[in-house]
Amino acid sequence: MGKRMGRYTVVMERKPAILGYAAICGKKESEGPLGAAFDLTYEDTTLGEKSWEKAESRLQKEAVNCAMKKAGVTAGAVDYIFAGDLLNQCISSTFGLRSLGIPFLGQYGACSTMAQTLAMSSFLVDGGMANLCVAVTSSHFCSAERQFRFPLEYGGQRTPTAQWTVTGSGAAVVGKGEGVPYVSAVTVGRIADLGIKDAANMGAAMAPAAAQTLRDFLSDTGTNPQDYDLILTGDLGEVGSKLLYEILSRENVSIQENHQDCGLLIYDRQAQDVHAGGSGCGCSASVLCSVILKKMQKGQLRNILFMATGALMSPTSSQQGESIPGVAHLINIRI
Amino acid sequence: MGKRMGRYTVVMERKPAILGYAAICGKKESEGPLGAAFDLTYEDTTLGEKSWEKAESRLQKEAVNCAMKKAGVTAGAVDYIFAGDLLNQCISSTFGLRSLGIPFLGQYGACSTMAQTLAMSSFLVDGGMANLCVAVTSSHFCSAERQFRFPLEYGGQRTPTAQWTVTGSGAAVVGKGEGVPYVSAVTVGRIADLGIKDAANMGAAMAPAAAQTLRDFLSDTGTNPQDYDLILTGDLGEVGSKLLYEILSRENVSIQENHQDCGLLIYDRQAQDVHAGGSGCGCSASVLCSVILKKMQKGQLRNILFMATGALMSPTSSQQGESIPGVAHLINIRI
Repeated sequence: MGKRMGRYTVVMERKPAILGYAAICGKKESEGPLGAAFDLTYEDTTLGEKSWEKAESRLQKEAVNCAMKKAGVTAGAVDYIFAGDLLNQCISSTFGLRSLGIPFLGQYGACSTMAQTLAMSSFLVDGGMANLCVAVTSSHFCSAERQFRFPLEYGGQRTPTAQWTVTGSGAAVVGKGEGVPYVSAVTVGRIADLGIKDAANMGAAMAPAAAQTLRDFLSDTGTNPQDYDLILTGDLGEVGSKLLYEILSRENVSIQENHQDCGLLIYDRQAQDVHAGGSGCGCSASVLCSVILKKMQKGQLRNILFMATGALMSPTSSQQGESIPGVAHLINIRI
Repeated sequence: MGKRMGRYTVVMERKPAILGYAAICGKKESEGPLGAAFDLTYEDTTLGEKSWEKAESRLQKEAVNCAMKKAGVTAGAVDYIFAGDLLNQCISSTFGLRSLGIPFLGQYGACSTMAQTLAMSSFLVDGGMANLCVAVTSSHFCSAERQFRFPLEYGGQRTPTAQWTVTGSGAAVVGKGEGVPYVSAVTVGRIADLGIKDAANMGAAMAPAAAQTLRDFLSDTGTNPQDYDLILTGDLGEVGSKLLYEILSRENVSIQENHQDCGLLIYDRQAQDVHAGGSGCGCSASVLCSVILKKMQKGQLRNILFMATGALMSPTSSQQGESIPGVAHLINIRI
C-alpha cells in the first residue's frame, strides 16, 4: 500500500507495473515525428464513423483493446477502468467503453487526465483493491474545435499562442509485474489560477500548476530535476514551456536540460502549422503510451517524471468572464 | 487496505469513517419534507452570485467548508478532494473548490457522483494513501435545465417521466475515526445500456445499472436485501424505482420493503409539482449527507446500501441518436 512522503506525494510500495500500453492516432499525428511509434493511425479522421464524437469513442476503445492485448489480459480480468476526455459529460469515454463490461470510473482532469487515470490505477493496485486497472484518455481535433471554439466550417484564424488538439488516444494496463516500467510515486496537484483569461493560450494558464506540482514533488522527495532522465510535461506547448522555465528560474530551479513537452514532440512545428504545439488529453496520452514507454522498456530512459497539465475551464466559464484554473498531476515512472 | 470479495466488491479493512458531512440546498428543497435536515438553505437560487453556474460552485464550496468544520478539520489537513458535477467540464467543482488548495481529482459519474467520490475517498483512506479525503458533488436546477434541456425562459412543458434537478450540494469528510458511520464495502458499477433514448426519462435509463450493481454486490457478499436496514438509490424517481423492482423480481429478488429513493424523499410530489421525483448529483448527495447519515449516527439505521445511479449521456450524444448508458456505484455504510 502507498506511503505518504511529505505533504503531497505518495510513494508506491508494490511497484504497480505498466503491463501493456497503446496509442492510436489520426492522420496529422501519423505525419509527425512520432508517426511510426503509434500502434495504429487512421487516414480518415472519422474512422468510418458517422460523427467526430463517435470517432473519438472508437479511438479510445481501440487503444484499450490494443493495450490489453499487448498486456495479455482480457476485459473480464480488469477490475477498474479509469477514463476521461474533454467532451461534455465525457462521452468519448462512456460511449467508447460501454461494451467492455469493466467497472467504470469516469475521471475529469482536462488535459491532465492521462496522469490522473494512471495515478488512480496505481493507487488501487498498490492498495490491493485491484489486480488490474486500465487508464485511458483521448481527444479529437474536430470534436474539440466545435465544442470549445468554432465550427470547423467557419474557418476561424488561429492565434500564435493557440495549440492544435491531438486526434489520438493512449491507454495503459496497470497491474503487478516485473521487468516493465512501474509507477514509483504520485503527486496529485492542487488547482492554480493566476488569472489568465485567454482561452487561446492554455499553455500560460497551465504553467503555474505545472511549476507548483513539480516543486511539491521535488520538495517532498528531496530530489533535484537532474536526478531524472526526463521531465515530460503534457501539453504546455511553446508558450507554456517557456513560462514554466521562467517561474522555476525565480526559485533557482532549472529543468531546461532534461525537459520535454509532449505538445512539442508530437508535431513538426515547422512543417505542420500547429502554432504553439499539440494539446488535448490525447496528446500526452499518445506520446507517453508510444515512444516514451518504449524507450523505458529498452532502458534508454530509466527514471522519468510524467506531468500532465489540465485547464479546468469550459466555454461557459470563459463567457462569464472567469479566468482559467489549471492543475497538474505528476507520475514518477521507473524501470 | 481493501480486500476483494467476489468479482466486483471491495471490503474495507480499516473502516474509513465519515467524520463530518453537510448538505446545502435551495428554496424548493427547503420547502420539501427534508427541509429542516439541511445545514443551510437559500431563498434565492442565485445565492447572490451573478450566474447559476457560480451559484452552484458556491453551494459546493459551502458544503465542503461546513462538512470540514463539523469534522473539525481544516483544508490544509485534507489530502485529496474528489469532486464532480453535471456541468460541462465539471466547472461547479473546479471553480467552487479552486481556492481551497486541496489536491484535486475531478470525477465524472453523472448522478452517481456522490457514490463515486465516496468510493474513491474510502479506497485511498483504506489503502493508506490518504489520511483525510473529501467527497463532494452538486447540481442546480437552473444550470442543469439550460445546459441539458431548454432555456428556462422558454417555459417548456415537462413530461410525466421527467424529474426535477435538485439545487443542492452534499459533502462528506472521510478519514480514520471511531463511533461514526463508516464505509464497509464498495461495488463499482459497469456501464449498462438497454437502449433507452428518451432524455426525459432518466429513471428508465438508469434502472438496469442499479439492478446490475445490486445483484453484483449481493452475489459477491452472499447477502440478501433483507440483511440491510435500507437500500437507498440515488435518483431513480417513480419510474426508475418501479422498473428496478420489475427487473429484480424476474430474478426473485424483492427490495420493496426496505428500498427508498432519494429522488422520492426530497420533495412532496403531491404539493411540489416535480413529476417523477428529484434528480441530479445534488439529490442523492444532499439526502445522504443530511437525514440519512443523521439517522445512522443516532443508531436508527445501522447498515445501509447507498447506491447512486448516473446517466452517462450528453445533449450531443442524444442529438446524434445514441441511447443512454447508465452506471451505478454501491457503498455499504455501517455504524
